Amino acid sequence: METFEVKAYGTEAIDADLKPLNIKRRIIQADDIEIDILYCGVCHSDLHTARNDWGGSKYPVVPGHEIVGRVTKVGKDVTKLKVGDLAGVGCIVDSCQHCSSCAEDLEQYCLNGFTGTYNAPDKILGGYTFGGYSEKVVVNEHHVLRIPETLDLKAVAPLLCAGITTWSPLRHWNVKEGSKVAVVGLGGLGHMAIKLAKGLGADVTLFSRSTNKIDDAKALGCDHVVISTDDNEMKAVAGQFDVIIDTVPYVHDINPYVATLIISGTIVLVGYLGPLDPMLNTVPMILGRKSVAGSVIGGIAETQEMLDFCGEHNIVADVEMIDMQYINDAYERMLKSDVKYRFVIDMASLKN
Amino acid sequence: METFEVKAYGTEAIDADLKPLNIKRRIIQADDIEIDILYCGVCHSDLHTARNDWGGSKYPVVPGHEIVGRVTKVGKDVTKLKVGDLAGVGCIVDSCQHCSSCAEDLEQYCLNGFTGTYNAPDKILGGYTFGGYSEKVVVNEHHVLRIPETLDLKAVAPLLCAGITTWSPLRHWNVKEGSKVAVVGLGGLGHMAIKLAKGLGADVTLFSRSTNKIDDAKALGCDHVVISTDDNEMKAVAGQFDVIIDTVPYVHDINPYVATLIISGTIVLVGYLGPLDPMLNTVPMILGRKSVAGSVIGGIAETQEMLDFCGEHNIVADVEMIDMQYINDAYERMLKSDVKYRFVIDMASLKN
Ligand SMILES: [Zn+2]
Ligand SMILES: [Zn+2]
Ligand SMILES: [Zn+2]
Ligand SMILES: [Zn+2]
Repeated sequence: METFEVKAYGTEAIDADLKPLNIKRRIIQADDIEIDILYCGVCHSDLHTARNDWGGSKYPVVPGHEIVGRVTKVGKDVTKLKVGDLAGVGCIVDSCQHCSSCAEDLEQYCLNGFTGTYNAPDKILGGYTFGGYSEKVVVNEHHVLRIPETLDLKAVAPLLCAGITTWSPLRHWNVKEGSKVAVVGLGGLGHMAIKLAKGLGADVTLFSRSTNKIDDAKALGCDHVVISTDDNEMKAVAGQFDVIIDTVPYVHDINPYVATLIISGTIVLVGYLGPLDPMLNTVPMILGRKSVAGSVIGGIAETQEMLDFCGEHNIVADVEMIDMQYINDAYERMLKSDVKYRFVIDMASLKN
Repeated sequence: METFEVKAYGTEAIDADLKPLNIKRRIIQADDIEIDILYCGVCHSDLHTARNDWGGSKYPVVPGHEIVGRVTKVGKDVTKLKVGDLAGVGCIVDSCQHCSSCAEDLEQYCLNGFTGTYNAPDKILGGYTFGGYSEKVVVNEHHVLRIPETLDLKAVAPLLCAGITTWSPLRHWNVKEGSKVAVVGLGGLGHMAIKLAKGLGADVTLFSRSTNKIDDAKALGCDHVVISTDDNEMKAVAGQFDVIIDTVPYVHDINPYVATLIISGTIVLVGYLGPLDPMLNTVPMILGRKSVAGSVIGGIAETQEMLDFCGEHNIVADVEMIDMQYINDAYERMLKSDVKYRFVIDMASLKN
């Protein structure tokens, strides 16, 4: 398969900083779209993959799955977008399109395994996929999103991962006008969960461990902040929430949050992958028909639905713009949660 | 409040056998129904309450919440049943009827606490409620069930607890024609889960730790039996089940069952109250949008729905009839799971 070379930024080893690299992209096929990347959001997964925190990283790693840009070429069969249109690419660049999950527009649960935007076996070109820390990307049109022209493009990028990761459970668990939603954790995911739940008309509460996030949460549109370390505040919201979106990425006790679910309510974990320690107690779950669930990103149709919704409601992420060369410092700051709430790379800087 | 005395069987202390006792019932009030108890099923909760296994038992304890009999008196405002009708009483004899749960016919989740059929504070008479190991019971009509005349009455009794406990989650999680349902544990609850799921048109699998329950499960209508200790059999059903009803009453590892849920599937715990040990792993939950939930008994309207459904589909429990005097031996056999699948007391024996 014919390829062309583009500039990128990535890492060649677990303990190496990210630096300029050249990578190959395929020449567009009949159903492909080639995108000139303008902005790329910086997700925690980028950092974890670059550093092999989850194992299985294949080097070089070029992260980035919150991609927005402009279409520069389209294959002959492409109908979704044309040259010059805005385009987005999220966490999924390929899926089988014939399994029962794909048939239901749930590519994120493709039974044959979706192809991640970076560090996943590339079924078309061979080798491993490279993400959005690069000049251009080539993706088949099914996995490319339309971007509303009315939004601030820089701040759209994080919708492609942080946005859809919280939108999908809000929709699947039927959050609507008047729903009572709580969010655990105020980072890239949490701040999007608040904005999207508010957009859907929910009454939104942030659980926070300290009082110093109250002003930030209110500024994002949160109706209430509950200090989760304060027993009285927690008791006051017992049995309140229809849905809780728990974005915390490290192990933590979810039992106190289960207690705040209404009868038949659900807490959805989207951040922490691993054993629930301390152990989950079934007593309140059984006596209140409560559910503990998980959810990962979202399907392509659902991502488009979210982008269109954000266009109508003028919802974007709160971002801090950085140059590509700042990425290693950005990772260090992310580890300290020192960003409100998502770094976005101005890809023009890659040409520097 | 005027009362009358009836014969019963109960225990006066944690370590005492059950024996004949006399207890008081209230004279019927305007909305009460007095029932001559013909049969009473024997639930594990009876045994645990008699022996204070969960703490909080108030002696004397008169167990029994799978009650069927005939109406002997009705209060002046009663419209649901008349003297001579069959009647049933399950686990709930009173609820507030004005909270949000009661408003949705979810008395089992009454926010003010439903009154259990035995060993619960009796808001009408004072003291604690006495269950169905007795000649008669007096219950307000809302909490009394109609019993289809066509069913084998003895075998209806266990529907009032074991039946509704499995029916409610099957219905809440939308089991229908063609659903793939698995049941964990083949006791009083498990055997009803199989029959009711089959009645709803599901394809039903029993998870069993050994091969010696295969014939029994098939005889109950089970389509498949999977030996949960056999890794190959478990792998063969990975990602299969829409709903799993887990009836096992002691701590056990539910992670292997989560692996057998389909995308967006739910495992519902109805037996085990306590911390999930080993710890529940969120990875398959997040990567497959799977839920772990709990459920307890069911509401009055839902119990009536189940009884009517059983009447139409000729579904009853498999029972072993015993005399009241055999109850202490029955408890010992229940601890060894030596019953297929529910003991039912012929209350005529109480007169012996
Ligand atoms: Zn991400
Ligand atoms: Zn697929
Ligand atoms: Zn019971
Ligand atoms: Zn109530």
